[in-house]
Amino acid sequence: MKIAVLGTGTVGRTLAGALSGIGHDVVLGTRDPQATLGRSGPAATGAQPFSEWHAANQHIPLETFADAADEAELVVNATKGAGALAALSLAGSANLAGKVLVDVSNALDSSQGMPPVLNPVNTDSLGERIQGAFPDARVVKTLNTMNAGLMVDPGRLAGGDHSVFVSGDDAGAKTVVTELLEALGHRDIIDLGDITSARGAEMMMPAWLRLWGVLGTVEFNFKIVR
Amino acid sequence: MKIAVLGTGTVGRTLAGALSGIGHDVVLGTRDPQATLGRSGPAATGAQPFSEWHAANQHIPLETFADAADEAELVVNATKGAGALAALSLAGSANLAGKVLVDVSNALDSSQGMPPVLNPVNTDSLGERIQGAFPDARVVKTLNTMNAGLMVDPGRLAGGDHSVFVSGDDAGAKTVVTELLEALGHRDIIDLGDITSARGAEMMMPAWLRLWGVLGTVEFNFKIVR
Repeated sequence: MKIAVLGTGTVGRTLAGALSGIGHDVVLGTRDPQATLGRSGPAATGAQPFSEWHAANQHIPLETFADAADEAELVVNATKGAGALAALSLAGSANLAGKVLVDVSNALDSSQGMPPVLNPVNTDSLGERIQGAFPDARVVKTLNTMNAGLMVDPGRLAGGDHSVFVSGDDAGAKTVVTELLEALGHRDIIDLGDITSARGAEMMMPAWLRLWGVLGTVEFNFKIVR
Repeated sequence: MKIAVLGTGTVGRTLAGALSGIGHDVVLGTRDPQATLGRSGPAATGAQPFSEWHAANQHIPLETFADAADEAELVVNATKGAGALAALSLAGSANLAGKVLVDVSNALDSSQGMPPVLNPVNTDSLGERIQGAFPDARVVKTLNTMNAGLMVDPGRLAGGDHSVFVSGDDAGAKTVVTELLEALGHRDIIDLGDITSARGAEMMMPAWLRLWGVLGTVEFNFKIVR
């Protein structure tokens, strides 16, 4: 499948690499490819400079958001939550129409200090805002409740014995995403409901952030025991 | 230990019965004992009428919030979240001062329709509001992320292989509550941090409500796999 992963941070790179690794035709999308390629210093998060990552992953082209989305059958939003709607606008409504749009982002807002808060929250969600802004896209919220490494290699923790959620209005899109998650190794994929159920998945992030702090690692995940 | 459980709904009754069952000296607190005892019809939730429950549990006295709290060494807030601060005000600051105050409630607001939303949320939590309103109480948020039956008998689901959180500013109070949770059978008790970490635990409730809907049972719980 031709997949565009929008966002060149750790989540975008990790997803792009893994989806390419299981045989998909993946491109990375960014606002300004030349500027992104020019980043030779370490990222604020301590991640590898993009140019180094790119040199080691030349089979994954870097394109503008719009060029990447235009050619794709499925688009993944792996941008920072605060910039997601702007990035998707640059990708373009026409380039998203009819396509499965997988949103893995978290709407974290650190502008008032740490820990970050969620915006939107409670009566709204980023998943819903994306679906509302791009009504012809088939939005599925998923994977936002775990670290990037576990998104693409769940088996490395407890043999994959933990859970992932999908939320969305389009049953066919959820089936496509479920198959993609299974191909990555996810074994317990829970359909939470329509896109409004993204509120539930997104609101797990504050607990995730606290757990990160007290466990001292991002190698953990939620399992729904039942 | 002398324990007052405030709230006579399913959560309060279940906690009171279980804490009594493991040897504590438990009283139930309610706004108006005579009115509560007069409830002979089924509750809105379909629970057993209180008078029937009480007849079968005569070893657990029913008192006013204030009388129950006055005699207690540890107080459990098992009222509905929306009424928690009012109930605790009736219990009385002086009757809560210096005591461990275990808050298991969820600040669910159904006034705008279903599913309920959280109020407060995100930048605040009910746990923090209770600590703020009763600064001399030693508030510990816990157990709000699961059904009442699992609160007191975690072993009935997957042999107890799931998690419970504690949040609070007072380390000694968290130790007392942790021991109480262990006595009830909890095996994975995670200290999330100070009382502001109650935001994380409380914000898991929207996902819990969605999971209840799609799983069709309340016999599930979160496990933090690590």
